[in-house]
Amino acid sequence: MDEGNTEWDSTQNLRVGPSIILIDPQLGDNIGSSARAMLNCGLNDLRLVRPRDGWPNPKAIAMASGAKEVLDKTRVYNTTLEAVADLDFVLATTARMRDLSKTVLTPKQAAERIIQHTDLGGKSGVLFGPERSGLTNDDIVLADAVINVPLNPEFSSLNLAQAVLLLGYEWLQKKLTHLEVPGAWGQSVPATILEREFFYQRLETELDECGFLYPDHLAPTIKRNLRSMFNKTSLTQQEVKTLHGIVTALTKKKSKNRK
Amino acid sequence: MDEGNTEWDSTQNLRVGPSIILIDPQLGDNIGSSARAMLNCGLNDLRLVRPRDGWPNPKAIAMASGAKEVLDKTRVYNTTLEAVADLDFVLATTARMRDLSKTVLTPKQAAERIIQHTDLGGKSGVLFGPERSGLTNDDIVLADAVINVPLNPEFSSLNLAQAVLLLGYEWLQKKLTHLEVPGAWGQSVPATILEREFFYQRLETELDECGFLYPDHLAPTIKRNLRSMFNKTSLTQQEVKTLHGIVTALTKKKSKNRK
Repeated sequence: MDEGNTEWDSTQNLRVGPSIILIDPQLGDNIGSSARAMLNCGLNDLRLVRPRDGWPNPKAIAMASGAKEVLDKTRVYNTTLEAVADLDFVLATTARMRDLSKTVLTPKQAAERIIQHTDLGGKSGVLFGPERSGLTNDDIVLADAVINVPLNPEFSSLNLAQAVLLLGYEWLQKKLTHLEVPGAWGQSVPATILEREFFYQRLETELDECGFLYPDHLAPTIKRNLRSMFNKTSLTQQEVKTLHGIVTALTKKKSKNRK
Repeated sequence: MDEGNTEWDSTQNLRVGPSIILIDPQLGDNIGSSARAMLNCGLNDLRLVRPRDGWPNPKAIAMASGAKEVLDKTRVYNTTLEAVADLDFVLATTARMRDLSKTVLTPKQAAERIIQHTDLGGKSGVLFGPERSGLTNDDIVLADAVINVPLNPEFSSLNLAQAVLLLGYEWLQKKLTHLEVPGAWGQSVPATILEREFFYQRLETELDECGFLYPDHLAPTIKRNLRSMFNKTSLTQQEVKTLHGIVTALTKKKSKNRK
């Protein structure tokens, strides 16, 4: 755990995230992978309705890769209704359109709705159907709206844990939007415009001596393109030093021969 | 196939999506799951560098759940450089911060950059490291920028196929929004990874002759930092030519004096 990270309050995040409800899951592997994906996204309330191979399931533990805190508190139910009874906002995932009147949300829209809801003190959950057949219409009817992931229409069947991940991912991204995301690595100090300019002028002087800035009428364009190329990198102070070193090295023998 | 979906042109989508490059993948299951996730998102160019259990792999086929068209055209390489040689914009995924100067993108930002790039006629790819250890610094240095998925900082290690899915998902969502993304580079043609590499090797040879890569034990670090600095710019072909010209110019008198 990164003790310095004051922006991440797992207790708070885990409490307000949606519950994940797997209906009739067939493979323990998928339950374990779902638990891992959940914890990756800061979710930890997993509920199972009639898991085919019983519970606990060793394959689930193996695939959870350490997301033990999720499996330890996983609860098992006999019916979907029991599993969602304490929630007050439920979404159902489905790849197929049904003959039902339902609002259809993308995962991103679903995340927004869930957060709107929990911000008001509500408890939300998302239903996922069994691997082969997906949710029954009776389960879907329980939900406030359905989630449909926009995917390749010629190959749209997502693995169960992949579907759980996408929902959790969109939820977390929405939660994190107020947090600062680091824009670049390292403690490196950016070079000032003056430091850059000093390097460019030095490089130009060297290149001019070599006849690189020839013919004269093209010199301004060549200089501009050089600056343009290097400025794309947002050079750091260290990088400017390195570039000076390169120019020095490449021109070294030349200078020696002049003396 | 949904004949009524006029917005989806699979031929077009599959051609312009990023290549997915798995470096040293250990488990066939993960390769298969990655292929499935790719096709879910309309991607089909999978490249493997040194798959541990060889290729083809029966476990990959089992886990691909019908994404046969991806596995059938999967290519295997001995080095990362060979696998990305024909691409001109490469991103590296990593969960850990490194001691390298690199732009860090979220998957969503990465998707925007990839689409900007391919809209200009470029070929892009995303590198994924082995399950246990992630990408090496040498592989990361090859890339134009890195992708870091904002996740639970206390449990941020994603399954390989899950990481592939998130990237593909964000790419597809961006493609489907039909948003205009302003181009960054005008008409310029990006340099391929191989063209970049050729320049770096030439520069290193020159610098080595000048004694710049000294002491020997620091040479690998210096080389890596040089590549890292230039790769931040996503060099164009014209810029690589210019850089060659600069090295030629700066070393010219030196060479003359040798003759």
